[in-house]
Amino acid sequence: MKKTFLLVVASLAIMLGANAQELTNFMNREPIVSPEIGESQVTFRFLAPKADTVKITGGFTPTVKMKTLFGEMDVPGSLDLTKDEKGLWSITLPLPEPELYTYSFIVDGTTVNDPRNTFMQRDGSRYLSVLLVPGEKTENYFEAEKRGNLHQVWYDSPTLKINRRMFVYTPYGYENSNKSYPVLYLLHGGGGDEDAWTSMGRTRQILDNLIEKGLAEPMICVMPNGNPNQMAAQTTQLPVSDVDYRDPSNRNNYVHSIVKDIVPYIEKNYRVIADPDHRAIAGLSMGGGHTIAAANEYPGMFQYICPLSMGIRGEQPDIDEKLQGLKKAGYKLYWLACGNTDFLYESAQKLDAKLTENGLEHTFYVTEGGHTWANWRVYLNTFAPLLFK
Amino acid sequence: MKKTFLLVVASLAIMLGANAQELTNFMNREPIVSPEIGESQVTFRFLAPKADTVKITGGFTPTVKMKTLFGEMDVPGSLDLTKDEKGLWSITLPLPEPELYTYSFIVDGTTVNDPRNTFMQRDGSRYLSVLLVPGEKTENYFEAEKRGNLHQVWYDSPTLKINRRMFVYTPYGYENSNKSYPVLYLLHGGGGDEDAWTSMGRTRQILDNLIEKGLAEPMICVMPNGNPNQMAAQTTQLPVSDVDYRDPSNRNNYVHSIVKDIVPYIEKNYRVIADPDHRAIAGLSMGGGHTIAAANEYPGMFQYICPLSMGIRGEQPDIDEKLQGLKKAGYKLYWLACGNTDFLYESAQKLDAKLTENGLEHTFYVTEGGHTWANWRVYLNTFAPLLFK
Repeated sequence: MKKTFLLVVASLAIMLGANAQELTNFMNREPIVSPEIGESQVTFRFLAPKADTVKITGGFTPTVKMKTLFGEMDVPGSLDLTKDEKGLWSITLPLPEPELYTYSFIVDGTTVNDPRNTFMQRDGSRYLSVLLVPGEKTENYFEAEKRGNLHQVWYDSPTLKINRRMFVYTPYGYENSNKSYPVLYLLHGGGGDEDAWTSMGRTRQILDNLIEKGLAEPMICVMPNGNPNQMAAQTTQLPVSDVDYRDPSNRNNYVHSIVKDIVPYIEKNYRVIADPDHRAIAGLSMGGGHTIAAANEYPGMFQYICPLSMGIRGEQPDIDEKLQGLKKAGYKLYWLACGNTDFLYESAQKLDAKLTENGLEHTFYVTEGGHTWANWRVYLNTFAPLLFK
Repeated sequence: MKKTFLLVVASLAIMLGANAQELTNFMNREPIVSPEIGESQVTFRFLAPKADTVKITGGFTPTVKMKTLFGEMDVPGSLDLTKDEKGLWSITLPLPEPELYTYSFIVDGTTVNDPRNTFMQRDGSRYLSVLLVPGEKTENYFEAEKRGNLHQVWYDSPTLKINRRMFVYTPYGYENSNKSYPVLYLLHGGGGDEDAWTSMGRTRQILDNLIEKGLAEPMICVMPNGNPNQMAAQTTQLPVSDVDYRDPSNRNNYVHSIVKDIVPYIEKNYRVIADPDHRAIAGLSMGGGHTIAAANEYPGMFQYICPLSMGIRGEQPDIDEKLQGLKKAGYKLYWLACGNTDFLYESAQKLDAKLTENGLEHTFYVTEGGHTWANWRVYLNTFAPLLFK
């Protein structure tokens, strides 16, 4: 019995491309747990009998000063692991502040993910190991009891002239009710794709928890791909279109596709309350720009408008006219958020000022920190309860 | 403009946990393409200025003999990359036979994925870089023109007393038609989960292509999690139940849950032709065992039965009785497949013999090769066109 099991394991390991050394290690070793999260500390482990140095670096390691093109910046430093007689490297750290961190090992100078940690996130082309530290701040980032479904949906975009993919979250209970739901259109930033908000943003978990606690209205959440040349995330290997979306004549084409292609698809294929009072739009960075543009180009279409870590950049001679149009059309919530060390904070301040100057009621939600997923998760967790109320 | 872009990139890189060295490299380097697939060759590249050796190992590197607990076995060997003056390591190989391969780099002894390759697969706890070589054998593994949707669905399992996740594929056109569809229940093996068939098995692409070419009937495909203690893949970090499914009193509980929990959920929530003629069950390895058990325990329930890389293991004193029950209930297809070097080939031969001995019409589809996803993709591509006809 045990022999058969080991044979299966060995076959699996070989089939998966383990090399001879790995396989020998695999057959001999005890299970290695990493990260091991305790009450007040966390231990990371990495098996590398032949390595000379193993370090860890991530969102929780002390920052170091580094000279860059933009002057001295704080970047995450690294900490040394120590090796035991079996070649197992480890480090135990005080549990960092509750947050979702990514981290890597650096083995003799080479950056490696934690091979014992199945919890990973993808940002564009990078896969990174995740440490999720429990606490009040992060409680909605863990799985709720009542979980909504997530659909990977292909739709035609006549506006962008390609078939494209988006992710659609349906709240717990959607399948068992006849109810119609409001919809949040949630947009990612540069370098991201339709998976960004669910992978790095923990959107499903955050909405599940907020809805389960009665803090947010049950809602559908639509996460499209904001790169207008892409059919889908580059993980699909699908070709990209060669339209030049920097050309002024193609400006806002993606925003048009949200209104003309995506909203109609959702309102046809999901049980949706299809009116402006039940339509919200939010987005971070580039997606914040899309959010602002959608509000300006289609005033009255979205009654809830939440740009995150974005504002007014460069010259926008028609901004007053646009904001007056939006003011005239009306809206229920304009919720602008930004971190006070974000490199786009100044642009957000400009938008805040322009909204005030034009007499548009709004919230300017300023937090510590910069242009980070740590902030964007907090923002989603904060504005979602304000929607559709 | 360029400065702002670089600042964004640098901020992103820092936020993602890049260390100082990486960041410097990042700011200075040209784009590195890996793998670069040409007409007749493929080049892999890895930037590691300080490394002493960089090797590549995977399904396409020549095998080496290795002593294991079970005698000498062939395992994938490695090939050396060479370094240029900028510290960029590379190797160009003749394009291997069309297949989907996984591979890793070994940098000074440490196994690393290809950081330039966004195409990855997860098998249980391992993430691996993928090389998909085009050709006749693999043409259905690439994205089709007309793609079906994929749903991550949570359902209650009264049988297993937990809420669980499954993946549900709906064929292209499902949303725009009023048609009802047949259903394939597709089961994974040991070490896998509800994501295995879509990640390693390329199920969505294979079914999309077969349906687009008119070779397979448009069908819904349901991929549950076959580990009865699990609510979902371990990537969700959800707790596992502590029921002992090795206890004989709990035998076949997962199979019961397919029939009592999953089939009713699907037939309630999807447009399904809810009769045995439009129900197929297939599975690999452990899932092949589940397939055989479902056919034996619920004769007449599934008219299409496809166990892959599995057969009769150990003593099964009631096998003749079970097979006679299945024969009496009737079925349209019994399609058993196995590789001739699979460590379970003998068990498949036993099942083939028992089916013949009991007068059950069936196909025994024997291929080269072993207990591998290379075979399971071929099997799906081969039996899916036989279903519901």
